[in-house]
Amino acid sequence: MQVAQGVQRDRVLIENVIVVPVTGPGEYISHGHIVVEGQYIMRVAAGNPVTREGFDRIIDGRGKLALPGFINTHTHAAMTLLRSYADDLPLMEWLETRIWPLEARLTGEDIYWGSMLCIAEMIKSGTTTFADMYFHMDQVARAVEESGIRASLSRGMIGVGPENELALTESRELVEKWHGKAQGRIRFLLGPHAPYTCPPGYLQKVMTLADELGVGIHIHLAETRSEFEDILRQYGKTPVALMQEVGLFSRPVLAAHCVHLTDEDIQILAANRVAVAHNPQSNMKLASGIARVPELLQAGVTVGLETDGASSNNNQDMIDEMRSCAFLHKVSTMNPQIMPAYQVIEMATAKGAQALGLESEVGVLRPGMKADIILVNLEKPHLYPHHDVIAHLVYAAQAADVDTVMVDGQVLMEDRRLTTIDESRVLAEAARITTRLLS
Amino acid sequence: MQVAQGVQRDRVLIENVIVVPVTGPGEYISHGHIVVEGQYIMRVAAGNPVTREGFDRIIDGRGKLALPGFINTHTHAAMTLLRSYADDLPLMEWLETRIWPLEARLTGEDIYWGSMLCIAEMIKSGTTTFADMYFHMDQVARAVEESGIRASLSRGMIGVGPENELALTESRELVEKWHGKAQGRIRFLLGPHAPYTCPPGYLQKVMTLADELGVGIHIHLAETRSEFEDILRQYGKTPVALMQEVGLFSRPVLAAHCVHLTDEDIQILAANRVAVAHNPQSNMKLASGIARVPELLQAGVTVGLETDGASSNNNQDMIDEMRSCAFLHKVSTMNPQIMPAYQVIEMATAKGAQALGLESEVGVLRPGMKADIILVNLEKPHLYPHHDVIAHLVYAAQAADVDTVMVDGQVLMEDRRLTTIDESRVLAEAARITTRLLS
Repeated sequence: MQVAQGVQRDRVLIENVIVVPVTGPGEYISHGHIVVEGQYIMRVAAGNPVTREGFDRIIDGRGKLALPGFINTHTHAAMTLLRSYADDLPLMEWLETRIWPLEARLTGEDIYWGSMLCIAEMIKSGTTTFADMYFHMDQVARAVEESGIRASLSRGMIGVGPENELALTESRELVEKWHGKAQGRIRFLLGPHAPYTCPPGYLQKVMTLADELGVGIHIHLAETRSEFEDILRQYGKTPVALMQEVGLFSRPVLAAHCVHLTDEDIQILAANRVAVAHNPQSNMKLASGIARVPELLQAGVTVGLETDGASSNNNQDMIDEMRSCAFLHKVSTMNPQIMPAYQVIEMATAKGAQALGLESEVGVLRPGMKADIILVNLEKPHLYPHHDVIAHLVYAAQAADVDTVMVDGQVLMEDRRLTTIDESRVLAEAARITTRLLS
Repeated sequence: MQVAQGVQRDRVLIENVIVVPVTGPGEYISHGHIVVEGQYIMRVAAGNPVTREGFDRIIDGRGKLALPGFINTHTHAAMTLLRSYADDLPLMEWLETRIWPLEARLTGEDIYWGSMLCIAEMIKSGTTTFADMYFHMDQVARAVEESGIRASLSRGMIGVGPENELALTESRELVEKWHGKAQGRIRFLLGPHAPYTCPPGYLQKVMTLADELGVGIHIHLAETRSEFEDILRQYGKTPVALMQEVGLFSRPVLAAHCVHLTDEDIQILAANRVAVAHNPQSNMKLASGIARVPELLQAGVTVGLETDGASSNNNQDMIDEMRSCAFLHKVSTMNPQIMPAYQVIEMATAKGAQALGLESEVGVLRPGMKADIILVNLEKPHLYPHHDVIAHLVYAAQAADVDTVMVDGQVLMEDRRLTTIDESRVLAEAARITTRLLS
């Protein structure tokens, strides 16, 4: 694969473009321009630029909408290899009889190609940053480095499993090797899998390591009714209350799912500034339940959006996820005014950046931020006429409307062609691996 | 616009294609071919054709999946002109302050272009038949005839409004002029709007006319909680029970929405063979509620899928609708096995045909049926690897994956280019009309 590292980053002008900078609900530029220099956004403004001279590249944004790239706050990238391998099954049957046996056969090289497949899909649907939890994370980091995307990676740690100590050692090595690399595009978080797989004693070791390395935590939390009930039975506390008691929340924590919460749990998450990664589609498809997102937002909790792995969703499409998020909470509260379009876009961008602790770098279009920018092509029948392009993005658009993707100032997709990934090779490798896995 | 009527229909071979004929859950051809002659499917079979001679056209289906075109069982096509004009509002405020004032300014020519915009979007997302209820239906019929799509049209009738008698007269004229025209692609149903706008006395007139003309009925039914309660208060019966008492169900009826149903209502719908058009996304977005679809299916009711108008959805994307249908009912019943992928595809195709009384013509791929066929391109990162392409279609695909669309043996889209509609002209007209409406 072509290596993005070291590619020259130019001075780029995006002109004649609609801009939704996601810096506030009313902030919208109906005809403007964006100037990028190297990794950074230098200017976001209405009208035409003072000069069109001195740019290495000028992108015509006519008929297009520019916004911050989507931030997918929780996935398992290489599970693209298991996409649609098993569906419409109860969770434990799905995991035990189908997913885990196949996962056990995945090699490091498989994880590399599976992650690359996922990254290709993510770029083609406008995602510029993702938070990943899986294994063989060295290979995932390699795919991130080469593809030019941005990621916060975690080596999944199972405290009750045979690799519990290995997971700590490997996580330390991964952080030391990769955290901050690729011009800062790669970050690491520690990834204790969940309260039901990581008992308090193990979590203490994870916390000690996190504090020593100066990194945050990424964990699955309160995903299913049975997790909630099992933890309550075992510890006399909810999963969220148990994590507070253990002391996990004394450092930055990204908690995925958070479907089953008491009122008190919501207060604990808010008071401890725990960020929540919300996945409406995975929760719906696996029948995990409906997360109390409007109440979390009301309580001031930072909530980002996520797709979860492709084997439970079954895509990595953040536009699809935005739409499901708005629709699900409107009907579950029987209130059509809940979760308006702008709020959902904010969850998919600015709030996602906050959830990953990257709010000073990405998530909004503003001078000084890293240039993670996507252009959405509005010249399509399903996006006409243009009454309200923010509503269009959430309620009418599709992933294939994303036309151009820039990360860290580098164009990763132009006119829907990937520039850093050999797409047909990735598809061929995914097919080859699948044949071997099923043989 | 180019007129499809009279276009020569050739002998076409689609080869090297995966076929999901929707004739039964296990029926799947991993490598096959389809032969079309004129309007009809002549052959659907595994392997290669006996000969490749004598075809006017050969379509290479490599990497593609062929299935029956989607059947959208309820929409208001020209409401594309109001797409994203007003969102995130309570239903009555939305209708009274935003939608109705703008609708009152729509001319026949506007309806033509709005319908054409909708048809362009529908073809580009794989829909080959739609059921429409709106006004200026002469213009909608004209757009259907010219574009080559198939439709069951209804002039919306408001019994309590000043045009109640005009609606009956116009409906008669429309049926006499259009029913069965365009080689049978255009059908008409009578369209009494809803129980709360059409009192029993008016429905009697509609039924008399329907029986005289030999056409069925298309009506909104039990969409909102307030409709349910108002009708119950006024008549002492649920909307469904009232329609039964009035005698509406003695003829073919297509009932849109059916969100608020009692157990007895479900039995009435089943016993009377009333078909239901289900719109998960409109019901979610407008917070109408969650229709009891698994129970309707259990009771043997024919349930098709629909998008509703673009002002309440905000697109005409049946793949999106399939996904929401599966996800919504899995989470609302907390059962991940409910509404498996194949069942949802059946609702979007074969069941939709049954709901419109077209099951002897379209909805499945079988010799003797009209050639309404779509090809979905699977050579995309988000559709790799190919473990289960039926699950892919519902859980991972997007509208833009539809590559080729054929209706009545005529190719309406090829490699995503529309053949009967001047797409850029349609977009320009929609923009022009919008500027005038808002001035």
